[in-house]
Amino acid sequence: MQRKSLISDECPIARSLERVGEWWSILIMRDALHGLRRFDEFSRSLGIAPNMLTRRLNGLVEVGMLERRPYSQRPLRYEYVPTAKGEDFRMVLMSLVAWGNRHYAEEGTSVEVVERQTGRAVQPMMATAEGQLIPLDQCVVQAGPAASTGMRQRLESIPQ
Amino acid sequence: MQRKSLISDECPIARSLERVGEWWSILIMRDALHGLRRFDEFSRSLGIAPNMLTRRLNGLVEVGMLERRPYSQRPLRYEYVPTAKGEDFRMVLMSLVAWGNRHYAEEGTSVEVVERQTGRAVQPMMATAEGQLIPLDQCVVQAGPAASTGMRQRLESIPQ
Repeated sequence: MQRKSLISDECPIARSLERVGEWWSILIMRDALHGLRRFDEFSRSLGIAPNMLTRRLNGLVEVGMLERRPYSQRPLRYEYVPTAKGEDFRMVLMSLVAWGNRHYAEEGTSVEVVERQTGRAVQPMMATAEGQLIPLDQCVVQAGPAASTGMRQRLESIPQ
Repeated sequence: MQRKSLISDECPIARSLERVGEWWSILIMRDALHGLRRFDEFSRSLGIAPNMLTRRLNGLVEVGMLERRPYSQRPLRYEYVPTAKGEDFRMVLMSLVAWGNRHYAEEGTSVEVVERQTGRAVQPMMATAEGQLIPLDQCVVQAGPAASTGMRQRLESIPQ
């Protein structure tokens, strides 16, 4: 991974991407959050070369997105289970589903996200902790308590 | 971009990533949505090699995330402005901010997302079109009208 500027490094998007910004890793997390567990399942789903898949799975274990658990002792075989942090990545995937459906599903949607009980379509929106929905164009990014001077200047330099 | 299986190709996440799954492209979209417009601004912000930046900007123009607009005739200079599709990518970035803040901000957050008018913290949640919030663990992925038989089988094969 190429090194970026300090400011970029402080940004939560840059930090996230540094961990899982790699294309295959995100598809592996998609499959893991969809219930796939074993090497062969990921391999079949993704059509990815075995050495590449091994490397990506190891990477996701290293950054704490997946946990490796033995499911057979002889031969020793592992399955890969999302951690709490990995589970929490689901919202990012939901955003990608929604965006992909809006812009790259000219022939209709192949995949939809719905409420389990009612079947109603759902999509990501911004909301306060109290559950009030806020239109995306009313949401702005600002410096948090741990922001460096550089980050503060950067965030204040641009009218939003 | 390496070719994946047909099923993978039908998935809106895979489709999205095919267009902008590349790490630098997402950071460029972050900056563009934050108001950066000119080559030098992106270059300063990202600390990326000029030839790499040119390639990524061209790529984002090609997939319709950014629009190239002349701002000077002599010398001819362009700025890069998010299209409607690029604007709509903001929710994906918001999800990355929220996830990065939850998991990679041990020392406190450097960047927060708040409602412009009130300063209240906001974060991505799933909601119906009527604005009812639905807990993420109540949201499931199902086959849409355009799903192939393969995609249907895939989505039905896993208990959610």
